[in-house]
Amino acid sequence: MDFVTRVTDDRGPDFVPAEERVAAFDNDGTLWCEYPLQVQLFFAQRRLETLAERDPSLKEKQPFKAFLAHDLKAIHALGKRGAFTIAFATHAGMTEDEFAAIARDFFATARHPQLGRLFVQCTYRPQIELLGYLRANGFRTFIVSGGGIDLIRAFAPQVYGIPTDQVVGSSVKTKLEVQGGRGSLEKQSELNSFDDREEKAANIGLHIGRRPIFVFGNSDGDLAMMRYAAGSAHPHLSLLLHHDDAEREFAYDREFELSPLAEGLNTASDEGIHVVSMRSDWTTVFDPSEAT
Amino acid sequence: MDFVTRVTDDRGPDFVPAEERVAAFDNDGTLWCEYPLQVQLFFAQRRLETLAERDPSLKEKQPFKAFLAHDLKAIHALGKRGAFTIAFATHAGMTEDEFAAIARDFFATARHPQLGRLFVQCTYRPQIELLGYLRANGFRTFIVSGGGIDLIRAFAPQVYGIPTDQVVGSSVKTKLEVQGGRGSLEKQSELNSFDDREEKAANIGLHIGRRPIFVFGNSDGDLAMMRYAAGSAHPHLSLLLHHDDAEREFAYDREFELSPLAEGLNTASDEGIHVVSMRSDWTTVFDPSEAT
Repeated sequence: MDFVTRVTDDRGPDFVPAEERVAAFDNDGTLWCEYPLQVQLFFAQRRLETLAERDPSLKEKQPFKAFLAHDLKAIHALGKRGAFTIAFATHAGMTEDEFAAIARDFFATARHPQLGRLFVQCTYRPQIELLGYLRANGFRTFIVSGGGIDLIRAFAPQVYGIPTDQVVGSSVKTKLEVQGGRGSLEKQSELNSFDDREEKAANIGLHIGRRPIFVFGNSDGDLAMMRYAAGSAHPHLSLLLHHDDAEREFAYDREFELSPLAEGLNTASDEGIHVVSMRSDWTTVFDPSEAT
Repeated sequence: MDFVTRVTDDRGPDFVPAEERVAAFDNDGTLWCEYPLQVQLFFAQRRLETLAERDPSLKEKQPFKAFLAHDLKAIHALGKRGAFTIAFATHAGMTEDEFAAIARDFFATARHPQLGRLFVQCTYRPQIELLGYLRANGFRTFIVSGGGIDLIRAFAPQVYGIPTDQVVGSSVKTKLEVQGGRGSLEKQSELNSFDDREEKAANIGLHIGRRPIFVFGNSDGDLAMMRYAAGSAHPHLSLLLHHDDAEREFAYDREFELSPLAEGLNTASDEGIHVVSMRSDWTTVFDPSEAT
């Protein structure tokens, strides 16, 4: 709140014009739960189950077998980029409208296996309050996530109040297919961008075209965009959420192969990055009004 | 106006919710002048003049020689993609902040050689009115241009009222360079996206994440995004500006190698695309209050 007061005080030395008040939020582990698998990977499991009904041989082939057997250890060993690249490829050949329908069905029914909540109810209440607080102070809020851009877009407008064009994420190449003069974009298997680490900064440049002055992340994959914000001529604030709350959510950091927080814990104080403790700093994690 | 009335009437059958009222405008030749060269290419000429002061041998090497000699015929022969790829590469190695400073200087002083106006005064007044009219009716207005995304962002907020994150364009790869913890994006020579034809539709999917229901273009390079809009479940409107006004601006179409309008003229009526005649349909082209 001190930071927001400083940058919005138009008579103060740290004033930042509204059009430059860009806030960038990571999604997985920052706005919603990512443990023990990112939601993208649960979504890929479901998709592979559908594909395996048509082609049972998938159940015996790696890396599909790892997903179909819910083998966490084998999925973790793939690393974030490896696991996500497989997940994205499971929707190749689908139009964006077909994808949107599948995503809608998934979010309407699929639940987190440990938390028992619908995935959209695994979003963090303090972060949704923070998004609203920043917007009320003239910030524009963007998501900059390693997750697939279209899966995030399927719920971000309703759940976070963030429009589709303010969502930046990983993406596959798409191809315009025209039939009878009417075009649709079809997903290809080839990766277009894996939006993690340095690529997050590059994608902020590409999609937003302004340096953020506020960055919230939770893993080493978010440090590059914090360093990008640190290059701003304006005051800036970077925050790292530390998952240290085994009671209300999960406790993990350096050892989580799908998105480790290790370098960040080592360098946060030197780099002026504030570490937020889920256990100590948040009075609430999930919306208590949502049934589990 | 009929179209806007239909899609904004919340009791009518053609109502489109505000978040889906996406309007996509081409820039070169649609929002501002692109003849005899797109502004991007005049900008590259100036940049090459600076580079040639340091390395005079560029004056003798093609394709630089064509730009430095203002040889329109040779530049036209490169085609749009060829000429633009050269133009983009002239800024390789520069940070985005350095680029922004050069672009600011250029727009403050550089004039169109035939029209005598500052380039930002070569924007079309009826289009600026149209952008405002659409926004007043709940549309969000996006630029989807073959021009370099950063050059457009250097003037679009002030001149068109379009924020940087609503500008989609061609781009080069960028790389985060971190010094003393402070990061900057540096432009590379490698092309990231040449935003023309089918790539315009793919980039709308990537950046906006919604089909447009309104598209305004002026060349064959804009047909793909019109066909993409035609795939919408909502009513949609596509318009092509025809440069047929040699008196107030220029008259060209099929033969303009840097951005021909040929297929569009052949198929517009079959595809339900409306052709706008600059000569007959526009009472004003440029803002008469701006000195030339």
